[in-house]
Amino acid sequence: MTSSEQARIDHLMMHQALQLARKGVLTTAPNPAVGCVLTKNNQIVGSGWHQRAGAAHAEVNAIADAGDAAVGATAYVTLEPCSHFGRTPPCVNALIDAKIARVVVAMQDPNPQVAGNGISRLRDAGIEVDVGVLESAAANLNPGFIHRMMTQLPWVRVKLAASMDARTALANGQSQWITSPQSRADVQYWRAHSDAILSGADTVLADNPRLTVRAAQWPESRPIPTQLKQPVRIIIDSQNRIHDELSLFDELSPVWLIRTQETDASRHPHCHQVIVKAAENGKVDLHDMLVELALREINLIWTECGATLAGVLLQQQLVNELYLYQSSQLLGHQARAMLELSELTILQQAQQIQVTDWRQVGNDRRIIGVPMPQQIKG
Amino acid sequence: MTSSEQARIDHLMMHQALQLARKGVLTTAPNPAVGCVLTKNNQIVGSGWHQRAGAAHAEVNAIADAGDAAVGATAYVTLEPCSHFGRTPPCVNALIDAKIARVVVAMQDPNPQVAGNGISRLRDAGIEVDVGVLESAAANLNPGFIHRMMTQLPWVRVKLAASMDARTALANGQSQWITSPQSRADVQYWRAHSDAILSGADTVLADNPRLTVRAAQWPESRPIPTQLKQPVRIIIDSQNRIHDELSLFDELSPVWLIRTQETDASRHPHCHQVIVKAAENGKVDLHDMLVELALREINLIWTECGATLAGVLLQQQLVNELYLYQSSQLLGHQARAMLELSELTILQQAQQIQVTDWRQVGNDRRIIGVPMPQQIKG
Repeated sequence: MTSSEQARIDHLMMHQALQLARKGVLTTAPNPAVGCVLTKNNQIVGSGWHQRAGAAHAEVNAIADAGDAAVGATAYVTLEPCSHFGRTPPCVNALIDAKIARVVVAMQDPNPQVAGNGISRLRDAGIEVDVGVLESAAANLNPGFIHRMMTQLPWVRVKLAASMDARTALANGQSQWITSPQSRADVQYWRAHSDAILSGADTVLADNPRLTVRAAQWPESRPIPTQLKQPVRIIIDSQNRIHDELSLFDELSPVWLIRTQETDASRHPHCHQVIVKAAENGKVDLHDMLVELALREINLIWTECGATLAGVLLQQQLVNELYLYQSSQLLGHQARAMLELSELTILQQAQQIQVTDWRQVGNDRRIIGVPMPQQIKG
Repeated sequence: MTSSEQARIDHLMMHQALQLARKGVLTTAPNPAVGCVLTKNNQIVGSGWHQRAGAAHAEVNAIADAGDAAVGATAYVTLEPCSHFGRTPPCVNALIDAKIARVVVAMQDPNPQVAGNGISRLRDAGIEVDVGVLESAAANLNPGFIHRMMTQLPWVRVKLAASMDARTALANGQSQWITSPQSRADVQYWRAHSDAILSGADTVLADNPRLTVRAAQWPESRPIPTQLKQPVRIIIDSQNRIHDELSLFDELSPVWLIRTQETDASRHPHCHQVIVKAAENGKVDLHDMLVELALREINLIWTECGATLAGVLLQQQLVNELYLYQSSQLLGHQARAMLELSELTILQQAQQIQVTDWRQVGNDRRIIGVPMPQQIKG
């Protein structure tokens, strides 16, 4: 077989492994979603994927699936096999013990406890290892995990839902509903895709939301996982205003209150306080909050908040992605603004957004974009 | 030949005629763009299109092109042949004189001077006539002409260019440039596509624009016509503030000042005043202005104005299409709003926009939409 034929087959098999990995994206947190395919003579002899933290890793599932056929097989893995004892024993050991002949890895594990060690240990055991097949597709599977491993911060998404003239509510506060049912269903999907939903006390006190994933509102085009994982609800509450009568506490999934000082505990069984530094203005230091959340293994945060908090997060360059749902109506200049930012005096100071995806959702447009580092400071 | 084969050929030939008609869209005003193909035994024996008002109509050009072959031919015409003496003799006479055997018409002429008379006269002369082949494509060629004929009002497009959070300028007025060069080039095309560019005195005094079509900024993807027609520049000037020192008057194309009272004339050779009724607030009655402009054969108006005038036009339901160029930056709530509207108290009062087209232009998104009739009054 020529090397270009081998490359074609490697792509094909890694594509299969990525498809398997995708099955886990809603359930593996705080672990990454990983898939694995074992082949012999370019036929698949076993496959596996990681389902949830604490359960077997993809490689171990694939080896079990293949049985004796694993001996001499090629393993396609979407992430470098782990070399350390975590919740389970290292996958590197399992691959060596199963007498795998070749391992093809989509991307190196950015986890500092692995970071190439897995690949080295396989090579030391005489296994042929190739790295980098469909690397960017593999990275896109786990943006939160990869970002946290590389920066010790979670990947932060901020959702904005507004009219065509970027208004989120009438002057009198009326806002149900600006966007279409399809957009709200799409939001349910992205909530489920996250480890945490972040909001501010102002929004929670004003709207009294539950901030849970509701299966009944799940978009038709997305498969419903057998068990909907409920993200942690994280509320920034600098002034200790969140109280037990809110609808948040009608649900059992965890609520973490971000405060600068410990106060009386909530009676809710899964309510915890996360104490972070105060910023100069006495409010929560948002960077410190994200550091604390990363330490608690929060990879991916979905933010649904008001114009003020969204603006502060953006200006502190803590937002990794914006999800803007734009409806097809006009509310006028007296309605509430989508985003509060400090006044600019020159246009070159404006926050640039690199749009990475935009499409129609129901009667709205959904625009996903990455805030770019600022060139000129205000 | 079966009737379905005939229908297929009719579509094919009408498509050719529409392609010819399109060549005239930038030059025929106030006439509609029209194309004509003559066939015999389903082979094209002559073709023509209307180039400018006063010049020969499409049918006459096609008959001249065919010569003797016109006898017994089928004529495919994108608009009902005219039956009245206008700037040129009726095309119906030319078709009868040329002994055309069959005429296929895409759409009836909404001009009350024609409105089926052309078709009747052809049938009276023993010519077989079929109507309605590719009718909506033919209608889309001439939205301004058709709308004016049916409503005695021009078709009004309003351009808005704003940031992702719907801001058109910083608080200090800085606005060059919010949108990308490609969007500004696209605007040049739509200016050229219009009979008039409408603006308000506030905008003209603040920005001192020329409001002309500049060939150097023409988008690369659009063919440049040999002669760029300059639209009439129409400025709403209720308070008689427009003066001869403005850049408007550095250009020779006509300027029409919309006023409620005749005042001293401008020294500009092509500047005229159009006197219209005053509204209750003493300003120009915008509906009456459009009636007056339609009487002056303005079919299609491209509006580039400020947030106030755009809002008033929308609220008076005088806007037929919005062109929103949305850039990929955020300016914040202190920057200037895209659109001023009366305050709403219930969301059901919001102006709904039916989005008919949206696409990427440079780094921006261009959204074209039709304001829908309001369900609930504010």
